[in-house]
Amino acid sequence: MQGLAASSRIALVVFLLSMAAAADGRKRVVSSSSDEPCTKMTLYLHDILYNGVNNSQNATAAPATRPTALGTTYFSNNTFFGMLVVFNDLVTEGKELPSGNEKPAALAQGFYFYDKKETYAAWFCFSLVFNSAAHKGTLNVMGADPMDEDTRDFTVVGGTGDFFMARGIVTIHTDLVQGSFYFRLQMDIKLYECYV
Amino acid sequence: MQGLAASSRIALVVFLLSMAAAADGRKRVVSSSSDEPCTKMTLYLHDILYNGVNNSQNATAAPATRPTALGTTYFSNNTFFGMLVVFNDLVTEGKELPSGNEKPAALAQGFYFYDKKETYAAWFCFSLVFNSAAHKGTLNVMGADPMDEDTRDFTVVGGTGDFFMARGIVTIHTDLVQGSFYFRLQMDIKLYECYV
Amino acid sequence: MQGLAASSRIALVVFLLSMAAAADGRKRVVSSSSDEPCTKMTLYLHDILYNGVNNSQNATAAPATRPTALGTTYFSNNTFFGMLVVFNDLVTEGKELPSGNEKPAALAQGFYFYDKKETYAAWFCFSLVFNSAAHKGTLNVMGADPMDEDTRDFTVVGGTGDFFMARGIVTIHTDLVQGSFYFRLQMDIKLYECYV
Repeated sequence: MQGLAASSRIALVVFLLSMAAAADGRKRVVSSSSDEPCTKMTLYLHDILYNGVNNSQNATAAPATRPTALGTTYFSNNTFFGMLVVFNDLVTEGKELPSGNEKPAALAQGFYFYDKKETYAAWFCFSLVFNSAAHKGTLNVMGADPMDEDTRDFTVVGGTGDFFMARGIVTIHTDLVQGSFYFRLQMDIKLYECYV
Repeated sequence: MQGLAASSRIALVVFLLSMAAAADGRKRVVSSSSDEPCTKMTLYLHDILYNGVNNSQNATAAPATRPTALGTTYFSNNTFFGMLVVFNDLVTEGKELPSGNEKPAALAQGFYFYDKKETYAAWFCFSLVFNSAAHKGTLNVMGADPMDEDTRDFTVVGGTGDFFMARGIVTIHTDLVQGSFYFRLQMDIKLYECYV
Repeated sequence: MQGLAASSRIALVVFLLSMAAAADGRKRVVSSSSDEPCTKMTLYLHDILYNGVNNSQNATAAPATRPTALGTTYFSNNTFFGMLVVFNDLVTEGKELPSGNEKPAALAQGFYFYDKKETYAAWFCFSLVFNSAAHKGTLNVMGADPMDEDTRDFTVVGGTGDFFMARGIVTIHTDLVQGSFYFRLQMDIKLYECYV
């Protein structure tokens, strides 16, 4: 095989790998390039934070902790150091919240907290829970969110169901912020290990 | 090699992959089917929650947060939205708690929280810590727990020691609930990337 | 190929795998031995905990939760059961904190909590965030920290940027403890899946 051209060798290996493991008849695929994920989708996460007053019906996220002494200090400059928020957010294919009886594409269940005193910085860990005609299963995601950068990368650490054993990257971008109690994240999900 | 039958090609690749990486003389195995995990075991997790009164000796789990305003509202309908519980639970091979000096099969160290206002739903992240004659090492696990489904799948995101670099799935089933302060989870652990 | 010696087969497979997937021209490498990680580095994490009095400027970590009833009980024996700490710690190549305008090698952003009543035991989940000339990207890490063992292994569950799709192990060792408000962890980071 030493005689094969490099491109042939790569093609051969990708072919071999693509046969290497099947889930329910599905084949394992390991991508050959970061430009060519085996699965790709864009979704929007809507975080509606409880405002402590009158939105408990609509809110999908709420602080799980009462501010500590230090937190209170840094709450005063609005960096919310130490605030931990639990969420069960709606996730949609388009930018708009579901209207009427429309079902969301997924739910994002997890938590984030703010971890910087001087500026905004957060840290996320959550599951994307799909239960639609298109997808059933979960993607588990975690990563740092340095909010002063335009895009940030989270890790897809695994998946279940349709996303059995998936791994990849979620690039997030803060698409919209409205006051202190709503933000929308664009999530570009790229999987590099798939069962398809 | 183009002349080989498909089944031979698969066998060849699995053979090649099984040689691809060895930890302390162990070989890396990537399963060829979701029906054939490379390691499989069933364990039971016992969560004994502190009741705030008289079980602090036996309790292995306790809320780490005091209820927030919204939490208090939803505690009243018993969905416990936002409550975050830290645990160090006993894990056994059979359904019973260890008796006398019997050692547990493992400890489950981590946390869960409730993330839905309308019904029960939780989210888990923990390590299974093995320190027995049978196994030494850890499995790290995370995932959403929509409690209204009979079984739910968590992701095994990695492992250490005997479970070096493991990946897989934990299917959980709520095996028993006693009041508000005890539940037992059946955990069917299936690893699809192993070093054996 | 059945005629090849075992060592040739291994060499062939490692060669094939090393070509299997490239990110931005980089090649995927799966290590062939736990003694030969594809990337290895030693870093030190400095955790400066807010003391509630006078170090809010220097502190990089603070409790995010106020003690619960049970927590208070066990705080009295100093095991801090249930205390959850959010951190944004400095990470250095040498043992010393950065001096003057020196930049840290990375930041460690995440949280830990104490989960044992009888003795010290903690659980960590965090991102190492690199933004230096040497490295840009993140490594996401989680695991149990049974503090009575000299070294403990965390899992590297994934990475981004320079550490695209990384997996591996972080072996930690408590290098120094000063009172209740400073500890330094030596982190031996070994990656077994890399893109180089």
